[in-house]
Amino acid sequence: MSPSPVTVLGLGAMGKALATAFLTGGHPVTVWNRTPGKAGPLLALGATAAETAAGAVAANELIVACLLDHASVHETLDGAVAELAGRTLVNLTNGTPAQARELAAWAEEHGITYVDGGIMAVPPGIGTEQAFLLYSGARDAFEAHRPALERLGAAHFVGTDPGLAALYDIALLSGMYGMFSGVFHALALTSTEKVPADAFGPLLADWIGAMAGGIPHFARQVETGDYVNGVVSNAAMQAAAFGNLLRTAEDQGVSPELIAPLQPLMDRLVAEGNGSGDVTGVVELLKR
Amino acid sequence: MSPSPVTVLGLGAMGKALATAFLTGGHPVTVWNRTPGKAGPLLALGATAAETAAGAVAANELIVACLLDHASVHETLDGAVAELAGRTLVNLTNGTPAQARELAAWAEEHGITYVDGGIMAVPPGIGTEQAFLLYSGARDAFEAHRPALERLGAAHFVGTDPGLAALYDIALLSGMYGMFSGVFHALALTSTEKVPADAFGPLLADWIGAMAGGIPHFARQVETGDYVNGVVSNAAMQAAAFGNLLRTAEDQGVSPELIAPLQPLMDRLVAEGNGSGDVTGVVELLKR
Ligand SMILES: NC(=O)c1ccc[n+]([C@@H]2O[C@H](COP(=O)([O-])OP(=O)(O)OC[C@H]3O[C@@H](n4cnc5c(N)ncnc54)[C@H](OP(=O)(O)O)[C@@H]3O)[C@@H](O)[C@H]2O)c1
Ligand SMILES: NC(=O)c1ccc[n+]([C@@H]2O[C@H](COP(=O)([O-])OP(=O)(O)OC[C@H]3O[C@@H](n4cnc5c(N)ncnc54)[C@H](OP(=O)(O)O)[C@@H]3O)[C@@H](O)[C@H]2O)c1
Repeated sequence: MSPSPVTVLGLGAMGKALATAFLTGGHPVTVWNRTPGKAGPLLALGATAAETAAGAVAANELIVACLLDHASVHETLDGAVAELAGRTLVNLTNGTPAQARELAAWAEEHGITYVDGGIMAVPPGIGTEQAFLLYSGARDAFEAHRPALERLGAAHFVGTDPGLAALYDIALLSGMYGMFSGVFHALALTSTEKVPADAFGPLLADWIGAMAGGIPHFARQVETGDYVNGVVSNAAMQAAAFGNLLRTAEDQGVSPELIAPLQPLMDRLVAEGNGSGDVTGVVELLKR
Repeated sequence: MSPSPVTVLGLGAMGKALATAFLTGGHPVTVWNRTPGKAGPLLALGATAAETAAGAVAANELIVACLLDHASVHETLDGAVAELAGRTLVNLTNGTPAQARELAAWAEEHGITYVDGGIMAVPPGIGTEQAFLLYSGARDAFEAHRPALERLGAAHFVGTDPGLAALYDIALLSGMYGMFSGVFHALALTSTEKVPADAFGPLLADWIGAMAGGIPHFARQVETGDYVNGVVSNAAMQAAAFGNLLRTAEDQGVSPELIAPLQPLMDRLVAEGNGSGDVTGVVELLKR
C-alpha cells in the first residue's frame, strides 16, 4: 500500500516539522498557512501549496491541523465545514480537554470525523524515536490513519472521549513544569556558590531520573486511595525535613517561591492525621 | 587489609541501615542510641553497644553520626569533645550548608577532623546500587575512610568547603520536591476523569525521565549566563502556552497552587525583554 495523502494546516515551527515528516515518509502532502509564502522548503520536498484552507481540505481525506490555539482552529475551519464533511480532522493544536470536546461536538454536528491529539515533542524531535503523540476520539479513523500518524512519532490512543488526549497532554506538561520549577530552584541554589555545572548538572539529571521511577507507584496510590501501605518516608518526617530546604534558600539568598507551596499542603496532611502515610496524599488536598 | 572499625551514633531508621551495611561488609561496629534498647538486631550481626556517646566515640577512629537534626548533633557530641579530639567525625545528619560550616568550625576548635555528608537514599536503599552519598570537608580523612564509606553507597567528594555536600544535598532534594509537586498536580488532574493508573503512571515516569535529560544543558546555561544560544522553545511561547495548564486545572476543579508560581516568573522574564531566550532564565529572577 503506498503512503496515503495528507493535508497539513498551519506551517509554524511545528506544522513545518509535521509536513516534513509526512513528506520524507513518502506521503503526498498538501499544505496551507494563513500567511502565504511559508511553504518554500516543503515545496522542494514535493508538497503542494493550496491557496485557501477550504482548498487544502478538499484535496485529501486526512486533515492534520496544527495552529496556534483553539480560537485559530475555529477561525481557520468554520469557513471550510462544507469541504470537511465526510473527512477526518486530526487536530494537533494544543488545547484543554474542554476545548477538545467542544471541537468534537462541532465536528459531529457537521458530519466531520474528529480525532484530537497532543504532541509530546519539540519540532526537531518530530519523526524521531523521542517523539510520542497522544490521540483520542474517533478510534476507527485513528486506526485507519495510524500508518501515516506514526510517521510523526509513537502514537498512543488513550480513549474515545475526545478530551482525554488533551488531559494526558496537559497533565504531562504540568508534571514537566513542576520538575523544571524544582530544577530552576536547585540551579539558583548551586549558582550562589562555586559548584561546577558539569559536576552538579549530570548528578541532578540522574537523581531526578531515579526518583521518577516512583511515579507509577504514586499513580496507583492515587487510584486506590491507599497512601499508607509500604511507606518508607512518611509525610510527618518529610514535612519537618522540608524546613531545611526553605532555611537553605533563605541563607543563600534564593527566593523559595517555586518550591514553597508544597510546605502548607504537607503541614495540612499531617494536621489532618495523615502524617504516617505517604506525602502523595497531598493529591487529595488539591481536588476541590 | 581487613575492614576498619566504625562507630555509629544514632539508630533511627537510617542509622540502623548504615550500621547494618557496615556489619554485612565485615566492619567491626560500635553503636550508640539516645534511647537504649534499639541495637537488638545489630547485636545479632556482631555489633557492640556502648552505654554512652563518649564511650562509643572512644572505641574507634571513625565516627559516623546520623541523628535527627543539627541540634541533636550538638546535644550528643558537646559532652564528648575530649574523646572526639584526634578522631574523624563523618556527620550524615541532614542539615543546611550553614549548619555544616558551623560544625566544621566547632570541630576544628576541638581538634576533630570533620567530614560532612548527605545521604541520597532511603534506608532500604543503603548498601545497594541505587544509593549515593555526598561528602565535603577534610579530603584526606575522606580518602582514608573511603573503603568503609563505600559500603553505604557510591561516595562523591564534592569539595573541601564543608558546606558543599549539604548544598548539593538540599539542591537535589529541592529538585525532587519540585518534580513531586508537578507529579502531584498531574495525578490530581488525571484522577478527575477515568484515566487508569497503569496507562498514565508509566507514561509520566518516562516523560519526566526523558525531559530530565535536558538538565545538564540547563546547568551550563546558568553557569555561562547564556540563555539564548540554540533555543528550541522560547520563553514567550511557553509563557503563553502555560495558560492552558492553568485553564485545565480550573476546568477540572484542581487547585493550581503547586504549578502556578512559575507563571509570574515567566511573565516577568518576557516583560524584561528575555522572551526569545530559554525559560531557564527564570533562575536569574530567583536570586535576590
Ligand atoms: N513548538 C513546540 O515546541 C510545540 C510542542 C508541542 C506542541 N506545540 C503546539 O503546536 C501548535 C503550533 O505551535 P508552533 O510551534 O508551530 O507555533 P508557531 O510557530 O507560533 O506557529 C503558529 C501557527 O499558527 C498559525 N496561526 C496563528 N493564528 C492563526 C489564526 N488566527 N488563523 C490561522 N492560523 C493562525 C500561524 O500562521 P501565520 O504564519 O499566519 O502566523 C502559524 O502557522 C501550538 O498549539 C503549540 O502549543 C508546539
Ligand atoms: N529516612 C530517610 O529516608 C532519610 C533519607 C536521607 C537522610 N535522612 C536523614 O538521616 C537522619 C536520621 O533520619 P532517620 O530516618 O534515622 O530518623 P529517625 O528514624 O526519626 O531517627 C532519629 C534518630 O535521632 C535520634 N535523636 C533525635 N533527637 C536526639 C537528640 N536530641 N539527641 C540524641 N539523639 C537524638 C533518635 O534517637 P531516639 O531513638 O532516642 O529518639 C534516633 O536515633 C535525619 O537527619 C534525616 O533527615 C533520612
